[in-house]
Amino acid sequence: MAYLHRGSVVAVDENYMKMALSLAGRARGRTSPNPMVGAVVVKDDEVVGRGYHRKAGGPHAEILALEQAGDRARGATLYVTLEPCNHTGRTPPCTRAILEKGIAKVVAGMKDPNPAVAGGGLEFLAGHGVETVSGVCEGECRRLNEVFIKYITSATPFVILKCAATLDGRIATATGDSKWITGPRSRHFVHELRNAVDAILVGIGTILKDNPRLTTRLEGMEGMDPVRIVLDTHLSIPPDAQVLHVDSNSDTLIVTGYDISPEKRKAIEQTGARLLTTDCRKGSVDLKALVKALGKMEITSVLIEGGATINGSALRAGIVDKVLLFYAPKLCAGDDGVPICRGPGVRAMRESMRVCDVSVHRFDDDIMIEGYINSH
Amino acid sequence: MAYLHRGSVVAVDENYMKMALSLAGRARGRTSPNPMVGAVVVKDDEVVGRGYHRKAGGPHAEILALEQAGDRARGATLYVTLEPCNHTGRTPPCTRAILEKGIAKVVAGMKDPNPAVAGGGLEFLAGHGVETVSGVCEGECRRLNEVFIKYITSATPFVILKCAATLDGRIATATGDSKWITGPRSRHFVHELRNAVDAILVGIGTILKDNPRLTTRLEGMEGMDPVRIVLDTHLSIPPDAQVLHVDSNSDTLIVTGYDISPEKRKAIEQTGARLLTTDCRKGSVDLKALVKALGKMEITSVLIEGGATINGSALRAGIVDKVLLFYAPKLCAGDDGVPICRGPGVRAMRESMRVCDVSVHRFDDDIMIEGYINSH
Repeated sequence: MAYLHRGSVVAVDENYMKMALSLAGRARGRTSPNPMVGAVVVKDDEVVGRGYHRKAGGPHAEILALEQAGDRARGATLYVTLEPCNHTGRTPPCTRAILEKGIAKVVAGMKDPNPAVAGGGLEFLAGHGVETVSGVCEGECRRLNEVFIKYITSATPFVILKCAATLDGRIATATGDSKWITGPRSRHFVHELRNAVDAILVGIGTILKDNPRLTTRLEGMEGMDPVRIVLDTHLSIPPDAQVLHVDSNSDTLIVTGYDISPEKRKAIEQTGARLLTTDCRKGSVDLKALVKALGKMEITSVLIEGGATINGSALRAGIVDKVLLFYAPKLCAGDDGVPICRGPGVRAMRESMRVCDVSVHRFDDDIMIEGYINSH
Repeated sequence: MAYLHRGSVVAVDENYMKMALSLAGRARGRTSPNPMVGAVVVKDDEVVGRGYHRKAGGPHAEILALEQAGDRARGATLYVTLEPCNHTGRTPPCTRAILEKGIAKVVAGMKDPNPAVAGGGLEFLAGHGVETVSGVCEGECRRLNEVFIKYITSATPFVILKCAATLDGRIATATGDSKWITGPRSRHFVHELRNAVDAILVGIGTILKDNPRLTTRLEGMEGMDPVRIVLDTHLSIPPDAQVLHVDSNSDTLIVTGYDISPEKRKAIEQTGARLLTTDCRKGSVDLKALVKALGKMEITSVLIEGGATINGSALRAGIVDKVLLFYAPKLCAGDDGVPICRGPGVRAMRESMRVCDVSVHRFDDDIMIEGYINSH
């Protein structure tokens, strides 16, 4: 019966961890540059405290859950999606509160991925007589914080490449027409994505062709606008481009090369946009250098919604972590339209970029293929 | 309770029809130009006879099921995926056997789609006191015989376009490398497709580049080779091409234009291949004319495994009924490889070809999108 008993304990742990995961996810897109964290305090099989980290600078999930539990935290188990912190950041360390409240056991979804603090919290707790477990629902916990993990371990943002194409791989027809490839549900999902990332990135081609606002528009709820990043080596954005004049609490950032006339620069800066001058290679922004610069600006995630040129460059530069490829159930039936990627592709099929952990989602008639790039 | 009772009767009918469907499917690819048909005789909730049509010229499913049922067929119900025939073809009409055996009720999956005989069998039986029902599991019955329905109503083959591409829509790299885009399970499925169709069609480009055999190779079972059709307007196939020398019980058919030198023609015909001369438009085979010619040859289904040029031409010619698009989890990350379709595509996105009844299948890491074209 030992095995069965152990099995049921594991199932119980997983159930509480899933509760904590669900709490954590409520703050999706709101905690940057911090991770999403959820916590549940369980005493005698009863949930006596719940909490999640709502935004950077606000109280940690553990603290909120412990506060709600009050005296019942004594001898209880704390489930938390991420190892409790043991250092004083914007708030005091959670480990101290856990000890003070008399928590008997801490179950963590994953260890702190920050190489500077890894192991600290659980080790400290174990050294003070608290039973500790780590790695419950670890896959889901890591997936939840894929952005944070990438950022904290590399100091560069997690980059998502989103693209919408016909089944024969065209993102626009020969006349440039791309409205609409996908249906309303897919487009709504893209606005949910925008609502969850720190920045959105397009090329100047997209600005000149579509003149988009690049804001988050979600019916019935207030979305958060990502920073709008436009790659524009020669600063050819028209001063009246919509992206420079949107009513938004987030910035527009124009990424240029060095050879920009001071007049042009001034005209664009007067719209309130920020200019970022960066290295260029063969007339294009050096994307590797760009993501480093964005990381320094505490931009932890970037959604690329560029055209074929940016798609190709970003993939070849190795900056893409995840692809979200929408395929609409239609065919252009020719090759004179715009492909998904432009530029020189791989020479041999065996050298092609692998997309891993592929999952398929449906949005009405559209199909979205989600996967991770492991090229770096 | 009437509703519940009716509900359960319907469920019983569907269960027996699914049994008949499953029997019918055993002869997939073996009944051309006939449909696949399965039949089950049920007496007092017991299956007393089963049968399926094994090949053209062989006994019909109903006859085999009735024979197995013997005397127990009297007063029984016959479930059959397709309306029983009422005419003398290669075999005597099934309706006569049904009456002779004393069947009380006939449940058909669908009516005979042949416009020349529609309604005949069930009407005849009803006129002779047999209770008749039609349309049980009709969607599945129609799907099972999509090839037969297309052929019998249009006298042209059901055309399936199969293609394997990277997620960014490339069927080969810039060097022409396409080995392998998809994995072994996808490739095995393609051989199952070949095993089920009457013909396979490629362009001369594929012959010159890959020199394929175009045979059915299924491990552990004997496959049936489809007729190999090569579009070769100027008859430039080399006399030593593998497709001309395979050990196969099916033909190789080379489709050419009219301006072929008699010497070339003779050289190719000496390999045993058949030549079909057909109309050309702008230097390419007129595909609309070709499918009519193939229909006259009793080819009821064609699997296009051509390259980008044939894919584009076939779709634009409106001859494609179904697409099977395999996407491998990889990216070429450029546009210098071979696209899925070549040629002039639609000008506006709203004019793109619709793919209907889309379903998604997985073959290990590969994704197959299956859908129907309703452009004609």
